[in-house]
Amino acid sequence: MNFRDLSPSPRTLMTPGPVEVDPRVLRAMSTPILGQFDPEFTDLMNETMTMLREIFMTKNQWAYTVDGTSRSGLEAVLVSLIESGDKVLVPLYGRFGHLLVEIVRRCGAEVVTLEKDWGTVFAVEEIAAAIRQHRPQLVAIVHGETSTGCMQPLDGIGLACREIDALLVVDVVATIGGVEVATDKWLMDAVIGGTQKCLSVPAGLSLVSYNERVESKLLKRKRIEQGLLSDSSAVSSSFHDLLGSPIRSNYLDLCQLQDYWGPARLNHHTEATSMLYALREGLRLVLQEGLQDRFERHKRHEAALMNGIAAMGLTLYGDPSCKMPVVTCVNIPDGVNGESVRAVLLSEFGIEIASSFGPLKGRIWRIGTMGYSCSKRNVLLTLGALEAVLTLHGVKVDAGAAVQAAMNTYNKEALWS
Amino acid sequence: MNFRDLSPSPRTLMTPGPVEVDPRVLRAMSTPILGQFDPEFTDLMNETMTMLREIFMTKNQWAYTVDGTSRSGLEAVLVSLIESGDKVLVPLYGRFGHLLVEIVRRCGAEVVTLEKDWGTVFAVEEIAAAIRQHRPQLVAIVHGETSTGCMQPLDGIGLACREIDALLVVDVVATIGGVEVATDKWLMDAVIGGTQKCLSVPAGLSLVSYNERVESKLLKRKRIEQGLLSDSSAVSSSFHDLLGSPIRSNYLDLCQLQDYWGPARLNHHTEATSMLYALREGLRLVLQEGLQDRFERHKRHEAALMNGIAAMGLTLYGDPSCKMPVVTCVNIPDGVNGESVRAVLLSEFGIEIASSFGPLKGRIWRIGTMGYSCSKRNVLLTLGALEAVLTLHGVKVDAGAAVQAAMNTYNKEALWS
Repeated sequence: MNFRDLSPSPRTLMTPGPVEVDPRVLRAMSTPILGQFDPEFTDLMNETMTMLREIFMTKNQWAYTVDGTSRSGLEAVLVSLIESGDKVLVPLYGRFGHLLVEIVRRCGAEVVTLEKDWGTVFAVEEIAAAIRQHRPQLVAIVHGETSTGCMQPLDGIGLACREIDALLVVDVVATIGGVEVATDKWLMDAVIGGTQKCLSVPAGLSLVSYNERVESKLLKRKRIEQGLLSDSSAVSSSFHDLLGSPIRSNYLDLCQLQDYWGPARLNHHTEATSMLYALREGLRLVLQEGLQDRFERHKRHEAALMNGIAAMGLTLYGDPSCKMPVVTCVNIPDGVNGESVRAVLLSEFGIEIASSFGPLKGRIWRIGTMGYSCSKRNVLLTLGALEAVLTLHGVKVDAGAAVQAAMNTYNKEALWS
Repeated sequence: MNFRDLSPSPRTLMTPGPVEVDPRVLRAMSTPILGQFDPEFTDLMNETMTMLREIFMTKNQWAYTVDGTSRSGLEAVLVSLIESGDKVLVPLYGRFGHLLVEIVRRCGAEVVTLEKDWGTVFAVEEIAAAIRQHRPQLVAIVHGETSTGCMQPLDGIGLACREIDALLVVDVVATIGGVEVATDKWLMDAVIGGTQKCLSVPAGLSLVSYNERVESKLLKRKRIEQGLLSDSSAVSSSFHDLLGSPIRSNYLDLCQLQDYWGPARLNHHTEATSMLYALREGLRLVLQEGLQDRFERHKRHEAALMNGIAAMGLTLYGDPSCKMPVVTCVNIPDGVNGESVRAVLLSEFGIEIASSFGPLKGRIWRIGTMGYSCSKRNVLLTLGALEAVLTLHGVKVDAGAAVQAAMNTYNKEALWS
């Protein structure tokens, strides 16, 4: 059996993830491996924790990675906090809200959902009212719904949770590093971020941070693995002596993860060395750019993209008042095969944009402007190519207008900065 | 905040993982990203599946990655197969057997353990007898216990399982790619391999393969996420209409994972692109070397290492008749601080060897000879450095003898190949 050399074609990735990776991050991954408990490696882990706190805008002690893709972090937080029979409120307005419901239900919770039409979000007061009415132990919600391109305002939900002593868990997978995520200011008890979106690090790690309210709940469910104890007989009953019920997952048990990341350095998994190198370098570049500058960059390229799309005669999907700055959802014109447009964009221009899920499949395209992919070059190339492919598919567009509109937007840049 | 450039010191990694990575694999990780459903990427995924089948010596349709470190694969298989109240037999002879118990218990199983003193393994007939006696739904066992350096013979256990229609799940995390793992021949229903050991790919992925007996059990528990369905109302009740109970984890649900890896390509997680690049390259190098040649290489360097250790006057831990060829456990001489020896080896020579867990902590060192780390250069450097550090710690050793003994072993190489 003979397999060819790894040699993927060059791609411009304008999806809501995975997106392009800064060459400096790619290079970091080719650095030789350190052992997991090598002091040089644990220093790198600690530095990564420090940078994660900055990114999450938090003073939380705990900010570390779960070794899995984004949803592993979501499940780690939820399975570690939810006990069988707990009531969990999930306000949902898109596909990833459904994912939270899915995970929460598998944790054995009684789920109460609050649904909004896709393409819109909740008024914070609606959610606060539902919290007061249902009095859940935990509220789980998505910050940025990449399935619809909508972003939920969060400030105020945390306060309502504290009134009834509920925990607030927020999926910031798609917003972290591209949009403000004010963990402490918004009273979010646990947040879960992704790497392969606005942070522009390859998929494979999930980022979590949580406060003392979460930790005190976790510690009630903590136990140490038997194979790690020096005197194995002394603790054989510890599994049954907990105040809380045991956490259902071993791999995704935050008690064990924090003992691995914390000073105890208790063996759990083997930290994914090369991915940690990539994350550390990616976070370093984010902080070098500066969070506020980075958020403004994402707004600038969003504006150019939206103006280009409008000049092409296309319309945007969803309520503009809650549009997510890092994903732009475009209505597929009537009679156009959206998948064919995507396929030609990919095969002829090497540009990838996304379709959507469930009820929106075939109805919208989703164009991401995230992290390293969020650049003038990429926006201009994408608009030009999309125009050409639409023309090829018989759509009447004002030739050349999209790129000019984007260029004009950039020329006004001085006014915004 | 200013963080320094990533610049880890060079290391010779002689632990049972993570081990050194071939520069070709490191380079593969710096390849730019493809989108997860890009046909070029799904081709790479398919090629990886083909190579995994070779490595696992199986004709199974399913052989793919779980995006997490090794224990994520263990938990994925166990949580997807075990229903609450199932009886599970775990024959255990070291720390990683305890880990299986831990995971199985959290899956809600009734666990029956069969224990052997650390440093030994079971006769296959002992396990077969226990299977006939306890009639479990599932048997879970470790192939190579890196905590003790012992390897359990497996041929015959699968047959006993089939007699009572039990499933056999085997942790081959530490053996895959270094020692024969004959999935089909030994009638193993599911196997879970690690990347960061004998395959010499960085940690971050877990490798699973399973047969139709497993798949038929999985399909009884299958459901599709609501956010993915076009008509969300039609299936809202599907969660309750299963023949089997729903799988407790979403991230580690093999039903969803096989629909992501299979022709359906249903969205689940975002495959860890750079890690997949690394794995594909690592597998390619393994197959280029040839499995049998690779196994012989591991035996050859093990022999040189053991002869060197013996020439130094040190003794090996554990029953030699079940020694794992890729891990050599050395008794720490009386009165020597094992951690101090390890620390000096690391800080002065840049060489890492491992301690052990639980009852063996402070009693043995574990020296890995795995994958890319398993080389003449590394064995000779390690023996020379260990001798120097032992001398520094006041241990009387016959100066120079260890390296000469290893060299003599290599000089006999022609006789073995």
